[in-house]
Amino acid sequence: MDRFEQQIAFILEMDKMKSIQRQTYIANGSRKENDAEHSWHLGLMAFILEEYANEQVDVLRTMKMVMLHDVIEIDAGDTYAYDLTGNETKNVREVAAANRIFHLLPDDQAIEYRALWDEFEAMETMESKFANTLDKVQPVLLNNASGAKSWQEHEVKKSQIMGRNARTPEGSEQIWKYIKSIIDENIKSGNIKDE
Amino acid sequence: MDRFEQQIAFILEMDKMKSIQRQTYIANGSRKENDAEHSWHLGLMAFILEEYANEQVDVLRTMKMVMLHDVIEIDAGDTYAYDLTGNETKNVREVAAANRIFHLLPDDQAIEYRALWDEFEAMETMESKFANTLDKVQPVLLNNASGAKSWQEHEVKKSQIMGRNARTPEGSEQIWKYIKSIIDENIKSGNIKDE
Repeated sequence: MDRFEQQIAFILEMDKMKSIQRQTYIANGSRKENDAEHSWHLGLMAFILEEYANEQVDVLRTMKMVMLHDVIEIDAGDTYAYDLTGNETKNVREVAAANRIFHLLPDDQAIEYRALWDEFEAMETMESKFANTLDKVQPVLLNNASGAKSWQEHEVKKSQIMGRNARTPEGSEQIWKYIKSIIDENIKSGNIKDE
Repeated sequence: MDRFEQQIAFILEMDKMKSIQRQTYIANGSRKENDAEHSWHLGLMAFILEEYANEQVDVLRTMKMVMLHDVIEIDAGDTYAYDLTGNETKNVREVAAANRIFHLLPDDQAIEYRALWDEFEAMETMESKFANTLDKVQPVLLNNASGAKSWQEHEVKKSQIMGRNARTPEGSEQIWKYIKSIIDENIKSGNIKDE
């Protein structure tokens, strides 16, 4: 295959993201969202909310990162945040997936975008911290809008959601402050269990 | 509302894109895709295929443009490419939608992103030409992958698809050459009617 054919094969493989269901409901509560929709929503948030990153971010890098951060789920599947067994094997499954999926691209792009996925996972750069913050914040916004459907379904506890958001302030203190107030309201109303 | 609340309101309004159905099927043919999925796919294509733009493009501008180009359909709905009656009123409905939707944002962002939508529609800059090319090319890739389901359902004719793609080469001669070969194959096989 020549370079262009490899790129088209990758773009068509990406279509599978539209069939990977997440645990979060869309805002109107009618159904769960999928990885393609989630990734688009994060890409939008990356440039609408860039001014709130703790330090200035390269918006293009951040957008590419959030658009690609879940593509490994084409092979590895979506592991729910509070699924203990699934999370034990998550890393091994996702690395194997990254090795296959990014290498559908020509070598230069495979290396570039695989590195961007590694960067997202490592959470060391400002872009990856901000991208991870958006990835944690978006489901809170949707859960709150949908009447906490997913939190109730999974009986999510305060300790779980706070643990999951332990590093969310590293991307944006300001966004975290707002999200924390939403979480607090949902603890008060009983949508999130305060054990 | 303060600035941040306006931005969050816009981000939540955007969730409606996940419920706007297009006429194109996802690649496996199981269902039609929605505007959020389509916009994510175009955002990805913008940076994977940037090297094929006829002239160098600002990838960040192009990505923002394709991520936002359909948000007016939240009010105006998706007008199928070959729906004659719908296309007569399309422009009026879409301008009214743009006036409302972008102005959910703080003024500076409302002006910036409304201008980006106008730029996409005007097709004068290289970024908007490339963005429009991607917007035309993606459904051809999906139709071809899904066994021409949408073309057959709507009995699409060669003159229609060629008319719709009259300006596709302006964004990328190279991508058009490939897409033209897919169209030709589907005319030969009868999936697109050669009247």
